[in-house]
Parts: sequence; structure tokens; C-alpha cells
Amino acid sequence: MSRFFGLSLTAGAFAMIAVSALADGHVTKAQEDAIKARKALMGVVSYHTGLLGSIAKGETPYDAATATAAAENLAAAASMNPSVLWIEGTAQGTVADTRAKAEIWTDWAGFGKHFGDLQEASSMMVEAAGTDLASLQASMKGIGDACGACHKAFRGPQN
Amino acid sequence: MSRFFGLSLTAGAFAMIAVSALADGHVTKAQEDAIKARKALMGVVSYHTGLLGSIAKGETPYDAATATAAAENLAAAASMNPSVLWIEGTAQGTVADTRAKAEIWTDWAGFGKHFGDLQEASSMMVEAAGTDLASLQASMKGIGDACGACHKAFRGPQN
Repeated sequence: MSRFFGLSLTAGAFAMIAVSALADGHVTKAQEDAIKARKALMGVVSYHTGLLGSIAKGETPYDAATATAAAENLAAAASMNPSVLWIEGTAQGTVADTRAKAEIWTDWAGFGKHFGDLQEASSMMVEAAGTDLASLQASMKGIGDACGACHKAFRGPQN
Repeated sequence: MSRFFGLSLTAGAFAMIAVSALADGHVTKAQEDAIKARKALMGVVSYHTGLLGSIAKGETPYDAATATAAAENLAAAASMNPSVLWIEGTAQGTVADTRAKAEIWTDWAGFGKHFGDLQEASSMMVEAAGTDLASLQASMKGIGDACGACHKAFRGPQN
């Protein structure tokens, strides 16, 4: 039993090394940097969305200036040109540590459309966030929908 | 000697625990999230600046579309409102894992001015990047100066 377990682990370890070599074999420094930067951008998006969501749920007190700033920053993040971040050859399956589906590059216009949707929803949120809590709450769905639609179409499973 | 060394380590370990407790004692989830998000934003800034710098140095071939996209993204990052990212109570010394100097909050207008400077330099870079390599190269200094001036005034030493 102990021997069998030992062999399993060894086979598992070999498999992991093989997969890792396959997945990382052709990653250039430029591709690695782009993947890191787009994850950072998603982190910026997630932070401001989370802050707005927390205000919408009443977990963070509503304050027009804070809510507006969060919405403005979200709009700025959504306005970024994805072409220098989702660069060729950085799809999930080709490289490790990314969930960017290959469909991003076969349907580039569709991918870009989601950024436009998020930008539009964020711009509406800028208006709403400065108005009152009820308006902010009513505008959360547009942002959630934009995020969800893009992730559904273009984000692969957890690595 | 070995005994002395052992005692030193122990004293050092206690000191580290004490400092860490002091530094992390009052960090809320909101503050932690803000610190992570502003680091992510700095990562986005650094990526696009690095890409432009690499084009300027001839390490990455000049291409008007790529260079323009990088400059636009840099301008978008610099346009963000820092008030929801550099939130109160998150200075170096008060919390761990940040290099944000306390001067940010005592000279908020001065801090914001640097964001404006980076935004201006990035907007000029958008023009230059779409023109030709020589123009891009000539506009790098403005970006470097904006980054350097802010870091000099408001970024503390490595933790």
C-alpha cells in the first residue's frame, strides 16, 4: 500500500513536470508581463466593482464622492485597449496561469464588445452613483451583467 | 556563541512579531483591499510604461497601433481618482506591505498633482506614439519624470 502510494506520487510528479513544461515552454518575457498586467487590471476592476457592490448592499455607507470615484475608475479601467494585454499566444492551454480562453483571439470583436458594455455600464454608474443610493443600486445589474457575460464567453475554468 | 546566536534569533523573532502586530493591528478588510488594488494599478502603469520604454530602446519593434494603445492605457490608468485607492489609515508605518508615505495624506493636493502630470505626459505620448519612433522616444522623458517625481515625494523605502 505504502509502495503503491509512493509510485502514484512519483507518476503524479512526472505528470506535473510534463504538463508544466508543455504549458510554459514558449512563454516569452513579453507574454509573461502581459498576463501579469491583465490580471492586475482585472484586480482593479474587481476592487471598484466590489466597493460599489458593498455600498449597494449597505455594508459600506453611501457617499456620493466615494461612489462616483469608484464608478469613474471602473469606467477608466474598462476603457483600456485590450490589444496590448491579451496578446497573441497567451491563451489558457498554451500557457499556464491564465484563464483567457482561445476564443478571445478567434472572436476578437466579440471580446472587445464586452469591454464596451462594461464601459457603458460604468458610465451610467458614474451618473447613478452621484445621484443617490437607490440609483446606484439600480445600476449594479448592468455592471454585473457585463462582467458575467464576458467571463461566461471568454474565461476558462480555474487552473 | 551558538547559545548567543540562538538568543539573538529569539529576540529577533519576538521583535518581528511585535512589529507585525503593531503594523497589522488596525487593518480593516477595506484597507487591505485598497492597498492590493492600488498595487495592481501601479502594476498596470508599470507594464505600459515598460512596453513604451522597450519600444523606445528598440527592444520591441515600433508599431504605431501597439504604442498608441500602450499610451492610451497609461493615460486611462493615470486618470483614476486616487481617493478610493489611497484611503485613510493605510500609510507605511501604520500598516505593513505598503510604501505609501504618510505625506500623501498631509499633502493630498500635491499627491494628486502627480497623477495629473502623468496623465498629461501620457496624453502627449498618445500623440507621439502614433506619429513615429523618434516622437515616442522624445516623449519618454515626460513619463519618466512624472513617475520619478511622485515616487521621490510619496513612496517610502522598500519594506
